[in-house]
Amino acid sequence: MLVNDTIVALSTPPGQGAIGVIRLSGPKAIAITDVFFKGRNLTKVEANTVHYGKIEDEQGKVIDECVATIFRAPKSYTREDVIELSCHGSPYILEQVIQICLRGGARMANRGEFTMRAFLNGQLDLSQAEAVADLIASENEASHDLAIRQMRGGFSDQIKELRQELIDFAALIELELDFGEEDVEFADRGKLEALVEKIKGVIKELLDSFHLGNVIKNGVATVIAGRPNAGKSTLLNSLLNENRAIVSDIAGTTRDTIEERLNINGIQFRLIDTAGIREAQDSIEKFGVERTLEKIGSSTVVVYMFDVISTKPEALWADVERFLNASKVLTANATRIFVANKMDLNPYTQPEDYYKEGMISKDNLLPVSALNKMNIEALKEMLYLAVVDNPASMDQTIVTNSRHFDALNKAFESLDAVLNGLRSGITGDFVAMDIRQALHQLGLITGEIHTDDLLDSIFTRFCIGK
Amino acid sequence: MLVNDTIVALSTPPGQGAIGVIRLSGPKAIAITDVFFKGRNLTKVEANTVHYGKIEDEQGKVIDECVATIFRAPKSYTREDVIELSCHGSPYILEQVIQICLRGGARMANRGEFTMRAFLNGQLDLSQAEAVADLIASENEASHDLAIRQMRGGFSDQIKELRQELIDFAALIELELDFGEEDVEFADRGKLEALVEKIKGVIKELLDSFHLGNVIKNGVATVIAGRPNAGKSTLLNSLLNENRAIVSDIAGTTRDTIEERLNINGIQFRLIDTAGIREAQDSIEKFGVERTLEKIGSSTVVVYMFDVISTKPEALWADVERFLNASKVLTANATRIFVANKMDLNPYTQPEDYYKEGMISKDNLLPVSALNKMNIEALKEMLYLAVVDNPASMDQTIVTNSRHFDALNKAFESLDAVLNGLRSGITGDFVAMDIRQALHQLGLITGEIHTDDLLDSIFTRFCIGK
Repeated sequence: MLVNDTIVALSTPPGQGAIGVIRLSGPKAIAITDVFFKGRNLTKVEANTVHYGKIEDEQGKVIDECVATIFRAPKSYTREDVIELSCHGSPYILEQVIQICLRGGARMANRGEFTMRAFLNGQLDLSQAEAVADLIASENEASHDLAIRQMRGGFSDQIKELRQELIDFAALIELELDFGEEDVEFADRGKLEALVEKIKGVIKELLDSFHLGNVIKNGVATVIAGRPNAGKSTLLNSLLNENRAIVSDIAGTTRDTIEERLNINGIQFRLIDTAGIREAQDSIEKFGVERTLEKIGSSTVVVYMFDVISTKPEALWADVERFLNASKVLTANATRIFVANKMDLNPYTQPEDYYKEGMISKDNLLPVSALNKMNIEALKEMLYLAVVDNPASMDQTIVTNSRHFDALNKAFESLDAVLNGLRSGITGDFVAMDIRQALHQLGLITGEIHTDDLLDSIFTRFCIGK
Repeated sequence: MLVNDTIVALSTPPGQGAIGVIRLSGPKAIAITDVFFKGRNLTKVEANTVHYGKIEDEQGKVIDECVATIFRAPKSYTREDVIELSCHGSPYILEQVIQICLRGGARMANRGEFTMRAFLNGQLDLSQAEAVADLIASENEASHDLAIRQMRGGFSDQIKELRQELIDFAALIELELDFGEEDVEFADRGKLEALVEKIKGVIKELLDSFHLGNVIKNGVATVIAGRPNAGKSTLLNSLLNENRAIVSDIAGTTRDTIEERLNINGIQFRLIDTAGIREAQDSIEKFGVERTLEKIGSSTVVVYMFDVISTKPEALWADVERFLNASKVLTANATRIFVANKMDLNPYTQPEDYYKEGMISKDNLLPVSALNKMNIEALKEMLYLAVVDNPASMDQTIVTNSRHFDALNKAFESLDAVLNGLRSGITGDFVAMDIRQALHQLGLITGEIHTDDLLDSIFTRFCIGK
């Protein structure tokens, strides 16, 4: 992959705003800009400085007044010469300036091409580059924290270290192969076995973390079920009683109509009211519903709510059976939480009355009063623990990327084959092949091994201008 | 209006993007940022430099890696200390960083507050500040050019010059008043009369330019009418055969369903197909239609299209009468252009056959072939000239702002009163009062005179962060 041209793109979100930033990267970034930028001579200014000037088109017409920032290779995001033009945030102006850059010899950047250059030039490894996209997409504390840890190298460092240990052993085994028939053994089979066991252990932990990682990254699909009079809306309101965000106020972000988002200790729960689904089906929101259901796939948690005033235990059990049968796909693997509402109004009912073996017990039944906010915090705690078995695990390395999961899985299998080979005493060349396979898979994660197709599939997920 | 606190806002459009820029301005901008920015000590770095660093919250948790740009008063947009933080374009991160700034002592900026400070600190006059908002909102070449000319001071310079000449005379008259009974005359009445005439002439030209200015700023509402089979869709396609914009491709900008935009020599024509209006009324797009009609108000141009194969002159005249009656409000003051379509297919019909006194003549009838693109350029020329009588006027100062129009109108009336006073020989104190009134109105345009209410009403039209 030859990278010797200069790329340009709008790096800020499209639309009107106070400012819009256009970024150029490549060997001619400064020369191209210097032609249309009227102010200081950009080819002569120091790196990491900003300069006020006018942008003029080829006919000398002033297109904008802007501030240009100069970064010089290798001290830039891409390790190439980079120019950032901070213009007035008018789509018309930004379009004109990009067109001038294109006429001046730049090329429109592909999605993620700046970050891909950063990777190819050794600024970031591949898993760090992928974390940049995750970081931008992160919508809550937990997914943000995972992405930034990964971007800062935590995950790749661990993989690289394991891989290096394995490479050292592989080198010894390859050396044995060079000696052909001579039956020498440079690599201590006992130590190799121990190392492979250790690496398998680490990979196993990483693989196990993927379920949590996935849930953190995409939010926890949480179905709220129960009869219409059970008080679901009141419960939703009590749960959602949180501070509103300034930035999304500005954005006027459109929400999916029937999905509410609840943040518990940084983890995002996507609450789906099944009544909302039913009602929306009849109306214009149907399209939104389908999209939501698609996003849920199967839910992680089901909160089944009932009202202790009007619901007898037998009726509840029948309702629950009916609901679970009707929503099999959605709830197959979900953790079930039962919420007994209006508990404060009914001194005659005890929670125990609703227990039923294999369905409801003290571990998954919570008496609340949605209206009086009784036990709402306990419900949040229960939701959180349904996802995070052990809060300490949040500080460990967590795999969030299905590509990494896949590579780790394959590496694990190859290491299994290595162990089997060692134990059955097969020849070094077969062991070496399996080790090479494991090294390959681990190398794909950090990008020490990569193909154009792999890079394409990764960076097309990025936004333009990153 | 006391400005001594530090403000913060997101300056790029909301939403996910490669980068998002947070801007702080005020005496503590650098100190506040230095607390959470981990890299160089920002209080000690040179102005106009950029620095890479981490943003950490109060608990030392890394929120982002970013680039900070330092501007020091008075060499900044607001003439205060300004910091711009170029962060990853994640709404979650941007929200967190703004919250840290707020906890650190900054305040959320109001709409346009950065530009208001630029005005209050003498960086821009008021009409230049208003042009900043126009520039950001500009969607085409003509409105962009007017806004940038106004931002760069063209319009205000002219007003300030007129006002200064008037001030010099007013001073002499005020001096006369100081001498009370003594019947002295420092101000030459003949010269004053000539000056007022001259200023009135300039203001008259500016007032006359407002119709064009308004049309350029808001686009030219152009109704396309005619029977369904006349070929309107084909004509629209021929007219709209233009390059698509890169930035709006990215944006996925939503268009009003029944409005197409056509750019002719930089002027934007908003083409509204009346058939589109009729059809949309029955369907889900009704809301869009109402919004469009609201935006049109009354149209500036009506293009009435007919097909020379199937339309006899008498039938055309009757159709046109009926259309004009039915669309009175929309077309009352519109320039009418008649388009005879399929002219190439009908060698027997002559354009003259359709002439009718007071309705259709060679000046407003154009034979075309929409399908073969015959005379499409001539139609564009006709549309352009319907709006811009004299293309040279595009290079003169054009009033686009209804506040300016209003102030100019009132100044004109006061100057009229001055002239009447001078000619009827009334006493100096009345003349002085009218001059003061004219000076006041002209001062409101440039902001040499302003009130908090006026500033509020102007800057609330801005985006957050500008």
